[in-house]
Amino acid sequence: MDHEQLRAALDASTKALVEGTAKHPKLAHLDRVYLPSREAVKQIVKRLRQLCFPGYFGERGLTTEQLLDRTHLLVSETADLLYEQVRYCLRYHEHIAKGETGAQCVDCDDRAREIIATFFTRVSDVRDLLASDVGASFEGDPAAQNPDETIFSYPGLFAVTVQRLAHEFYKLEVPLLPRMMTESAHASTGIDIHPGAQLGPSLFIDHGTGVVIGETSVIGSDVKIYQGVTLGALAPAYGQLLRGTKRHPTIEDEVTIYAGATILGGETVVGKGSTIGGNVFLTSSVPPYNIVTTEPPRLKFRDRRRRTRGQDTVLDFQI
Amino acid sequence: MDHEQLRAALDASTKALVEGTAKHPKLAHLDRVYLPSREAVKQIVKRLRQLCFPGYFGERGLTTEQLLDRTHLLVSETADLLYEQVRYCLRYHEHIAKGETGAQCVDCDDRAREIIATFFTRVSDVRDLLASDVGASFEGDPAAQNPDETIFSYPGLFAVTVQRLAHEFYKLEVPLLPRMMTESAHASTGIDIHPGAQLGPSLFIDHGTGVVIGETSVIGSDVKIYQGVTLGALAPAYGQLLRGTKRHPTIEDEVTIYAGATILGGETVVGKGSTIGGNVFLTSSVPPYNIVTTEPPRLKFRDRRRRTRGQDTVLDFQI
Amino acid sequence: MDHEQLRAALDASTKALVEGTAKHPKLAHLDRVYLPSREAVKQIVKRLRQLCFPGYFGERGLTTEQLLDRTHLLVSETADLLYEQVRYCLRYHEHIAKGETGAQCVDCDDRAREIIATFFTRVSDVRDLLASDVGASFEGDPAAQNPDETIFSYPGLFAVTVQRLAHEFYKLEVPLLPRMMTESAHASTGIDIHPGAQLGPSLFIDHGTGVVIGETSVIGSDVKIYQGVTLGALAPAYGQLLRGTKRHPTIEDEVTIYAGATILGGETVVGKGSTIGGNVFLTSSVPPYNIVTTEPPRLKFRDRRRRTRGQDTVLDFQI
Repeated sequence: MDHEQLRAALDASTKALVEGTAKHPKLAHLDRVYLPSREAVKQIVKRLRQLCFPGYFGERGLTTEQLLDRTHLLVSETADLLYEQVRYCLRYHEHIAKGETGAQCVDCDDRAREIIATFFTRVSDVRDLLASDVGASFEGDPAAQNPDETIFSYPGLFAVTVQRLAHEFYKLEVPLLPRMMTESAHASTGIDIHPGAQLGPSLFIDHGTGVVIGETSVIGSDVKIYQGVTLGALAPAYGQLLRGTKRHPTIEDEVTIYAGATILGGETVVGKGSTIGGNVFLTSSVPPYNIVTTEPPRLKFRDRRRRTRGQDTVLDFQI
Repeated sequence: MDHEQLRAALDASTKALVEGTAKHPKLAHLDRVYLPSREAVKQIVKRLRQLCFPGYFGERGLTTEQLLDRTHLLVSETADLLYEQVRYCLRYHEHIAKGETGAQCVDCDDRAREIIATFFTRVSDVRDLLASDVGASFEGDPAAQNPDETIFSYPGLFAVTVQRLAHEFYKLEVPLLPRMMTESAHASTGIDIHPGAQLGPSLFIDHGTGVVIGETSVIGSDVKIYQGVTLGALAPAYGQLLRGTKRHPTIEDEVTIYAGATILGGETVVGKGSTIGGNVFLTSSVPPYNIVTTEPPRLKFRDRRRRTRGQDTVLDFQI
Repeated sequence: MDHEQLRAALDASTKALVEGTAKHPKLAHLDRVYLPSREAVKQIVKRLRQLCFPGYFGERGLTTEQLLDRTHLLVSETADLLYEQVRYCLRYHEHIAKGETGAQCVDCDDRAREIIATFFTRVSDVRDLLASDVGASFEGDPAAQNPDETIFSYPGLFAVTVQRLAHEFYKLEVPLLPRMMTESAHASTGIDIHPGAQLGPSLFIDHGTGVVIGETSVIGSDVKIYQGVTLGALAPAYGQLLRGTKRHPTIEDEVTIYAGATILGGETVVGKGSTIGGNVFLTSSVPPYNIVTTEPPRLKFRDRRRRTRGQDTVLDFQI
């Protein structure tokens, strides 16, 4: 095939693709309001993190004298970015709900300013919670050299920080943005906490890759969660029927959940002070102060000598 | 140690490293054909995603009138990028297979054009499959507000999109490229689907971090897979012997696999309509319409008061 | 709310945030020494990878003739970047340990040069280990087309490479840097290996998302580890008490650990040649040449017809 033929083939494919667009209207976002920008959301998250932990991220060598000016600048930059994105999110929502008319949403700008003003009044409270998380992360991890290190390089603390901020936008009922924020943390940490989840103080998520905490989860204070833990929903036959109901577990204070445990269901409650062993699969409640483990694993001696003869490699597949 | 001494030490180390190169010829790629570029592959993936979901990614505000021109431009840009990379991949393969002569591969350019032309004729079919996936993702997730959101921010749908596209290059026997495409999705989503896997329509992978779907897996329609699920091979004593055999499970239609389940082996079949519970470890087949769970976990009361006395902290390690 | 009102609200929030800084001194890094740069650490990792695998990464078309010059340049660039970061790390540590005086650390520059010179003398040894890892990755994975591919696109090999390099800085007692290096690999691969872990030769981590290998783990030679495997510590009541003790398992030679297994505790030893099944939760030792599996899962027939009648959807939550 020469260049000319390739070009002709591509032209034909282009035509087919354009014509096929009508076939799947849901796959195309045409003639519609702007979607928020994922890159802008990433920038917002970056700046909010700088705001929560002054001097740890962003420009170096922050001094007490500079703090007011730098904070002022940071708040104003972040608010500008947020203003643009929150408006897109509100307009998008109106558009979905009301069609064309929604796109001309008259009070969206006003509501966006309201939301942003309210959000910033809450950052101090978020910082109180983050201070408790930093303490818990340091206390809980013998490998941590000092609290600075947890702020500076622990993915668990980053994911919790982003979720606590996104949760404020969730409570303010901003569409799209909260989930985009937590997805940006998910992409870099492997920790997926829905912005709707209610997280108590002093939460420590160690390592964290594969952690999933669903929208209606409720977590008490001083909870430790290790990598690969799921607080999930039982999959219903008709998922959409469940929208809005409590589908995810409640974890009471001072619970530890080891790596890979899966806890499902909206009525599942893990009682105060309990410990859930690694890889446990749990769909019912646990009373306070209990330890839940899997059945002890089975041990089987394996005649290694047969293998080394290289005869029946099939044996090696048996586990 | 002063700067002068450091420089001398570094010079000595440089010499040692260069001399050591001969010791491990496999660690060096010297005097050989170009490898494909991972950055270019990332760009290709980005553009193909724009092509599959017009208006959701890339430039904003796409209108119906612009669609043909923009699609034309996008196809031609992507084809140019692909042309360069596919040629590298083909030349690389010839070089490995035939040595020096292979590097001068005379028909590689021609074959690259052929492959690209064929690939683009198949994008419409991929889009049909993606439309079914978008439906399944929205239906399956009560936290989804509307189908747009799944396209715009669900990592599971992104990973499936990339795999479906990479699978076309896999069928066209392009070396390296398909795996590079799925690895780029793996890096950003934690979802690792081999380009060789055969995925049926209406696949929903929720959250997804830690999902691994091996090369010879076969998945039916309307399957739901949660985070941390492995469809893997049993590790043989001599892995390379197994190349090309069916090593990964078959999952029939309408199966749900909960978080953290591990299903291994090429002869393992999960029958239609069955449900695999979280954290199940499965190496044999399951008949249709069955539910497979782990043994129920063990519950043990833990005398919390002994702990609060702070006497025997060893107790706290017992699970 | 108009623009003027928003600005006033933001000013008030800024003031509150600045005043609140005193409340949580640990959340702020003010008037203190510079922290190392995560971006610079990423650049260092990138260059060290190029150094370990000449011609695979970075500029294309490396030839034998260019090797000395390019290596020389690469070593010198990397050493410059390291010099700046290692000094920040050492000063930071002095500052934490000794306060203001520490920040003016007089011998930090000298020690940084010493550390860097020593580090580069060890890169050859790291390369020997990496050569064994490349062999093991190719041998162990039937989906690998050739060893090049494992170097070029396997996340497991990348994570092990970064850990082996970071481990050298760990042994040289550089603060912060080693963990920052492994965290940068964790972010892109989902594989979290503490720089303190002792890894034997010919280690193969396949897929790898969710793997966690703790600080005091000891791993023998020819070990295979699949995605989602944890070598962790049992969480103590008072985490910080455990600092410096052996808290993570020992894995002897020729052990295979399947996906999702969780192995905890400093006294847990998995004996030579043993196999740990997927999703096993293990807190005690296993003798050599044994196979450890979970209890076989339970199978239950599920009357699908009741579901299709759509009557009791509750049934579908029972697993």
